Amino acid sequence: MCPIQDNNKCCSGPITKIINARLLKNHEIVEGSYLWFQNGKIIDPQSLFFDHLRDADEIIDAKGLLVVPGFIDTQINGAYGIDFADYEGSDEKIQADINKVAKGLLQYGCTSFCPTVVSSEPAVYKKVLPHLNARKGSATGGAEILGAHIEGPFISVEKKGAHKQSVFRTAENGIQDFDEAYGEELKKGNKAVSIMTLAPELNGVNDTIPDIVARGIKVALGHTSCRIAEAEQAVVKGATSITHLFNAMQAFHHRDPGLIGVLGAADLPIPESPKGHPEPSDTSPCRTKPDPRPFYGIICDGVHVHPNSVRMAYYSHPTGAVLVTDALSAMGLPAGTYSLGGRDVAVDHNGAAYVKGTSTLAGSTITIDECIRNFQKFTNCTVVEAVEAATLHPAELLGISDRKGTLNVGGDADFVFLDDFTGELKVDRVYVAGEQVKLN
Amino acid sequence: MCPIQDNNKCCSGPITKIINARLLKNHEIVEGSYLWFQNGKIIDPQSLFFDHLRDADEIIDAKGLLVVPGFIDTQINGAYGIDFADYEGSDEKIQADINKVAKGLLQYGCTSFCPTVVSSEPAVYKKVLPHLNARKGSATGGAEILGAHIEGPFISVEKKGAHKQSVFRTAENGIQDFDEAYGEELKKGNKAVSIMTLAPELNGVNDTIPDIVARGIKVALGHTSCRIAEAEQAVVKGATSITHLFNAMQAFHHRDPGLIGVLGAADLPIPESPKGHPEPSDTSPCRTKPDPRPFYGIICDGVHVHPNSVRMAYYSHPTGAVLVTDALSAMGLPAGTYSLGGRDVAVDHNGAAYVKGTSTLAGSTITIDECIRNFQKFTNCTVVEAVEAATLHPAELLGISDRKGTLNVGGDADFVFLDDFTGELKVDRVYVAGEQVKLN
Ligand SMILES: [Zn+2]
Ligand SMILES: [Zn+2]
Repeated sequence: MCPIQDNNKCCSGPITKIINARLLKNHEIVEGSYLWFQNGKIIDPQSLFFDHLRDADEIIDAKGLLVVPGFIDTQINGAYGIDFADYEGSDEKIQADINKVAKGLLQYGCTSFCPTVVSSEPAVYKKVLPHLNARKGSATGGAEILGAHIEGPFISVEKKGAHKQSVFRTAENGIQDFDEAYGEELKKGNKAVSIMTLAPELNGVNDTIPDIVARGIKVALGHTSCRIAEAEQAVVKGATSITHLFNAMQAFHHRDPGLIGVLGAADLPIPESPKGHPEPSDTSPCRTKPDPRPFYGIICDGVHVHPNSVRMAYYSHPTGAVLVTDALSAMGLPAGTYSLGGRDVAVDHNGAAYVKGTSTLAGSTITIDECIRNFQKFTNCTVVEAVEAATLHPAELLGISDRKGTLNVGGDADFVFLDDFTGELKVDRVYVAGEQVKLN
Repeated sequence: MCPIQDNNKCCSGPITKIINARLLKNHEIVEGSYLWFQNGKIIDPQSLFFDHLRDADEIIDAKGLLVVPGFIDTQINGAYGIDFADYEGSDEKIQADINKVAKGLLQYGCTSFCPTVVSSEPAVYKKVLPHLNARKGSATGGAEILGAHIEGPFISVEKKGAHKQSVFRTAENGIQDFDEAYGEELKKGNKAVSIMTLAPELNGVNDTIPDIVARGIKVALGHTSCRIAEAEQAVVKGATSITHLFNAMQAFHHRDPGLIGVLGAADLPIPESPKGHPEPSDTSPCRTKPDPRPFYGIICDGVHVHPNSVRMAYYSHPTGAVLVTDALSAMGLPAGTYSLGGRDVAVDHNGAAYVKGTSTLAGSTITIDECIRNFQKFTNCTVVEAVEAATLHPAELLGISDRKGTLNVGGDADFVFLDDFTGELKVDRVYVAGEQVKLN
C-alpha cells in the first residue's frame, strides 16, 4: 500500500527529510531524530522505504535544534493596526488585512490561528465572518485559519472588558437568537466558527450549548459572572474551554470560586471519548481517562495574569493550559491609541493595552512565542509542557490533534525550529504546510 | 545501652504492644505492624529485646484498624460554651473551662492543640495566657496544650472578620508594641505562645517578624489585605504559615493574587534547615529541599471554603496543608447564640457561625476528625495525605515533629485507631501520652 495517495498520483511531490533534530514527540524530546514530509504532510519513512524504495529529495540539517509543532493561537483579535472586527472598507480590503496578519504571525512560529471577533452587530458578522472561514496555510499566504473565534455578544454586562455593551444579547429563543446574532455563517459550523465564547448565566444560553456543540463549534465560557454551579452545569452541557482564565470573570472567592473554581472540580462526568478533552494528569479525577475539566486559555504576558496565578492554574490542571495571545490590532506596532471592535484602546510602553482612559485591560500585544517563554518562566515547567500548551493542547481543544499540534505521521507539516542553546526558546526557522517561511 | 532513661529508673513502667495494626509510618500504611510504647513514649522494640530481653506487659489487638498519630489542632477558639478569650470569672473557673475543652477534644482524636485567643485588650491576655501555657496531656487531664495561638490584635481593619476592631493596633515601636499588647507572657516564647497571626502590611509589623520568630514563636499571616509582594516579604522575614487560607484575606485577584498567591510563589529562598518548613513535593521550587512556601491552615467544613478551592490549594501545595477547626465556643452545642471575644455569634442548624445579624463568618463548629474526612472527600487525596494534614504537617509547622505528628520511635504515644472499613474514617480508640481515653 502506498501511504500517500493524492488523486491517484501516488508518491508525487518531493520528499524532505530533517536530520539532527531534537523532536518533540509523545510528550518527550527525542534526540538525533529525523522528520520526513511530503505534500505538506508528515510521512512515515518506513513505508516509504519498503513500499517505494525511495529516499528524500531534500535534506535539512536541524543542527541539534529543537523541532516542535507549529504554534496555534486560538484567540487573536488582530495585529499590525488591523482588527478582525473592523468591517469598514471593501471586501478586498478586509481580505488583504487578514492576509497581512496571517502572514505576519508566521514570523513568531504561529502556523495556525482562530481570528477572534469581539461582540459586534449582526452586520459586522455578516461582513467579516465569510473572510475568516477555515483555509489552508502557506509560506506566502500566511498561517492557516482554523475558523473564527467569536467572543460575545452573549456575554455579561458586568464582565464586559473592552466589549461594546450595546450589542450584548441573551438567548430566550435558544439557537434562533444565536443565528439572528451571527447570521448564516453560524450554520456552517466549524468551517466558519471554531470557538464561541459565551456567559452561561445569561437567559437561555446554558440550554443552547448542546445545539452549538452539535454544529461542531467549541463552546468556551468567558466574560461571565457565573458562579461555580452554573459553570459546572455549562461543562456538563458541553462547554470545553474557559476564555482567558482569571480575566473578565468573577474573582476567585473562597465560598464561591466561580468559573475559576472549575479547575478544582472533582465530580464532573468523565468524557466517553478523549476527543476535544484534556489528557489525564496527576490531578485528573481519573488518572487513566480523559479529564472532564475544560481547557483554559491564559494570557501569559505578565500583565493580564500574575505569574503566581498562572502557576496555581497550571498546578491545578496542567494538561488544560492553552496559551493565547488575545493580541489586538496594536500587536507589532509601537505605543499609541488603536481600535478594537469600534472602541479606542491605549497601548503603553510596556505593551499593556487598556480601554482608553480606564484601567480595564483590552487585550495584549504579546506574541505566541513570548507566551511560551513566559509560561515556562512563570510555572517552572519543562520545555515540552510549555510548548504543548501552544501546540498539542489547543489542537486537542479544537478536536484537530490528528492533524495539528503534534509531529505525528499524517499530520500537517507545520513546525518550528527552536534555538534553546542560550536558555531562551528562540524561533529559528518556521515551516507551514511543508513550506519554509522567510523570516525577517 | 538502655533506650529509655528516666531519672536513672531504666526501663521502668509497663510496656504496651499494639498488634495487628495498619500503621501510618513514613508516608505509608504498613500492614500487620506492631507499635510499642512505655512511659508515654513510642519505643524501639529491637533495643528492648537485645538490651533487656523484655517483652510487652500488655498487648492490644488493633484488629486491622488504621493506627495513626493523634490529631493536632493549631487553631481552636473554644468549645462547649467556653471561649478561650473569655477572661471573666476566677482563675479557677478559667482553668476548669480549659480543662473541660482539653478533655472533650480527646473524643475526636485531637490529642494536642493550640488554644486560640482572638484580638483582645492587654488585660485579657494577662489573665488568660498563663492558663494556656504548654502542658502535657493525659487521659484524665485532656489533650496536650502546645502553647496559645494568638490571632490579632495586629491585624487589618478591612479583614477583621469577627474580631473586635477597637483593640486593633500597629507596631511603630516594633517588638515593644507587641510586648505592650500581650504582656509578659510573650517573653516566655513558645512555652506560652506557639503561633501568632498578624497582618504584615500594618505599620512596623513586617520588620518585627524576625524578633517574634527569635522567641521561638511561629508567625502566621492572616486577617490581612496584604498584596502578594508584602506577603512574600513577610515569608522572607520568617513567617511560615497562613491562617485560615481564603478566609479574611484579599480575594484571589488575577493581577495581584494577594496572600493566597504565595501558594504559587516560585522565587522564595530555599530554607537551609527542614525544621519548621513543609517537605518538598512535586510543586516545590526544588524537589529535594524543604519547600520555602508557608504552611496554610484551612477550614474544611464546606462552609468557610468551597471544596473546589480546597482542592486547588492542595494541588498547588500539598505538603503545606494544615487542617484546623477554628472552632468556637458553640462547638459541641446546638444552634443558638454564643460569645466569641466579647461578640455575639449566631450558629445556624448547619453548624455555620456568623457574627450575629451579618453574613461574616465567625469560626466553625466542626471537629478535627470531620475536617480530615472532608479534606479527603474534597481533594480525592489518599488517607495518608488526609491524616498527615492534621498530624505531620501541624507538627512540622510547630517545629515539633520529633515528638508529635508521627509514630516514630521517641515520639509521644499519642495515637488514634481509625475504622475505615465503612469507607469513612471513624475514630475508634484514642491514646494520649500512652493512656487510653474513655470514649463516650
Ligand atoms: Zn475577552
Ligand atoms: Zn480568624
